[in-house]
Amino acid sequence: MTDHHAEALRWDGQSLFLLDQRRLPAEERWLPIPDLETAIKAIQDLVVRGAPAIGITAAYAAVLAAREHGEHAVAWMKDMARLAEARPTAVNLRWAVQRMIAVREEGGDLDALEAEARSIHARDVAANRAMARLGSSLILPGSGVLTHCNTGSLATGGVGTALGVIVRAWREERLTSVYADETRPWLQGSRLTAWEFHREGVPCSVIVEAAAASLMREGRIHWVITGADRITANGDVANKIGTYSLAVLARAHNVGFMVVAPSSTLDPDSPSGDEVPIETRDSGEIWRTAGLTEPLSGIDAWNPVFDITPGELLSAIVTERGVLRPPFTESAIRAAAGR
Amino acid sequence: MTDHHAEALRWDGQSLFLLDQRRLPAEERWLPIPDLETAIKAIQDLVVRGAPAIGITAAYAAVLAAREHGEHAVAWMKDMARLAEARPTAVNLRWAVQRMIAVREEGGDLDALEAEARSIHARDVAANRAMARLGSSLILPGSGVLTHCNTGSLATGGVGTALGVIVRAWREERLTSVYADETRPWLQGSRLTAWEFHREGVPCSVIVEAAAASLMREGRIHWVITGADRITANGDVANKIGTYSLAVLARAHNVGFMVVAPSSTLDPDSPSGDEVPIETRDSGEIWRTAGLTEPLSGIDAWNPVFDITPGELLSAIVTERGVLRPPFTESAIRAAAGR
Repeated sequence: MTDHHAEALRWDGQSLFLLDQRRLPAEERWLPIPDLETAIKAIQDLVVRGAPAIGITAAYAAVLAAREHGEHAVAWMKDMARLAEARPTAVNLRWAVQRMIAVREEGGDLDALEAEARSIHARDVAANRAMARLGSSLILPGSGVLTHCNTGSLATGGVGTALGVIVRAWREERLTSVYADETRPWLQGSRLTAWEFHREGVPCSVIVEAAAASLMREGRIHWVITGADRITANGDVANKIGTYSLAVLARAHNVGFMVVAPSSTLDPDSPSGDEVPIETRDSGEIWRTAGLTEPLSGIDAWNPVFDITPGELLSAIVTERGVLRPPFTESAIRAAAGR
Repeated sequence: MTDHHAEALRWDGQSLFLLDQRRLPAEERWLPIPDLETAIKAIQDLVVRGAPAIGITAAYAAVLAAREHGEHAVAWMKDMARLAEARPTAVNLRWAVQRMIAVREEGGDLDALEAEARSIHARDVAANRAMARLGSSLILPGSGVLTHCNTGSLATGGVGTALGVIVRAWREERLTSVYADETRPWLQGSRLTAWEFHREGVPCSVIVEAAAASLMREGRIHWVITGADRITANGDVANKIGTYSLAVLARAHNVGFMVVAPSSTLDPDSPSGDEVPIETRDSGEIWRTAGLTEPLSGIDAWNPVFDITPGELLSAIVTERGVLRPPFTESAIRAAAGR
């Protein structure tokens, strides 16, 4: 696989830089992230998004915070608590912060923290490659695939999760067609995934979410492939709003459903999706698209950003450690998590 | 029921005026429709939309065309053929044109044509009221409902089809909550349906299409209620893209699915949805929303405007002549069509 892929973030040894994903695809602007506050705000404002990319960003942010605080470990720990809660649903953020805390608790200095952040980043790159290979091998030649949200280089440290699988499957000539849905309201599909497929040279058709069922009914989709923000001990998947809808539709049309996520997304300590906090974001993106600056009186919007897909609707969970098949057990999820 | 509802069109005896639905809710602008060409373009450009409203518009457009042509019946008939094909999926357009042709073939003059157009309009108003009463009676108190697209006063001659049912059910205190989805890509839900509920004083929450399944899983929806653009002899329903998706999700969650449509939407001469032409529209509305003026190279969009929902997924079809229950037979559909 060549390396034309985009990057969500860069670390130059001194500073973190984030590609501002709010402005894509119209504009490619890199934002410097000099300190922890800027990093937290960038995560909350979706400058960077995608569970693995948020985790890597948090790891570097922990380095920035350690520089700010010098030897003041208590202040740094308080910052880590705030950082871990910048967004609630994806578990990679919390996982990365815990890794950084563990380094510090073992007496690691600033260099050790930076080495750990670089290691988290490098391991995500390698995990992406391993998942792309494993996931692609599940796809029979002649298949059509549909993906949701953005799970590529912009969402991870490397080639991506679900998007990495699709790019590799395309290069291995397994795919006849690739569809990406818009992913309202933030349009990760039509803005980010389409831009990444364009850069990778993978032909892709964008659809509105509402058209996915018709595609399936016409027999044009053999796999729905998504990433995940958190996978619990029973195989339930928290992911971008609409994932559950696609999983129900896939089951009704006998279409496979593949979730691709690195081990850092596995959360064996959460028993099921019922315990995962679901972030609800401001409804402004719904009103603005409708041409309004504020909602009409009596009208509101319900804007959950994630949903829960029961593990029983999945055909496979692909991690860098291998492919899990249902029924998913806590021991299998824990083993794949390496914990 | 009070009459605060909006209007899609007005006929003052001389001219037709259409409320420009492309500009709602930001701006309420009425466009004069002086002749047939303007009417056809307004239908194609979605100044007016909604199967019944398109049918009424076509009836008045036939009067305008008859004025233009005087006694020249052949030219008028050619115009009627073009008018009937202004949009392909909704059958009300073709039905209204055929009604006008029948009047002319029976020797009707300009006054007779205008009387027929007014009658088509008035009968739609009455049909809306009857459907609202029949549909609401199916809803148990304490229910939550979800609707798709816009099926209110803007889509019909009167209080609407599905939206008319919901407004009446709200006033009869049967509803605990009302949800409307955005209805990408043209946003009939967040632009038009939300505006109508606002005017009617019905509290409503707007969601992205992708959130409908989560609402159902949480038990917050008891009925999905939609209109239709065409209902074939076997009960298959052509309607706004995404209707089929909602019907599959409703079935998977044991949620009722009600289609509300006047008899002019029934097409007993089409055996099934397989024969209904599905309009595909320009993909610009997908790119523009993504912040692009044109698609990226290698990337396209598939933008079908309608889909087909198999009759077996419906709980009820409500027409002004009564409530049909599955399994739907050609004879029942033909009887309800009055043909």
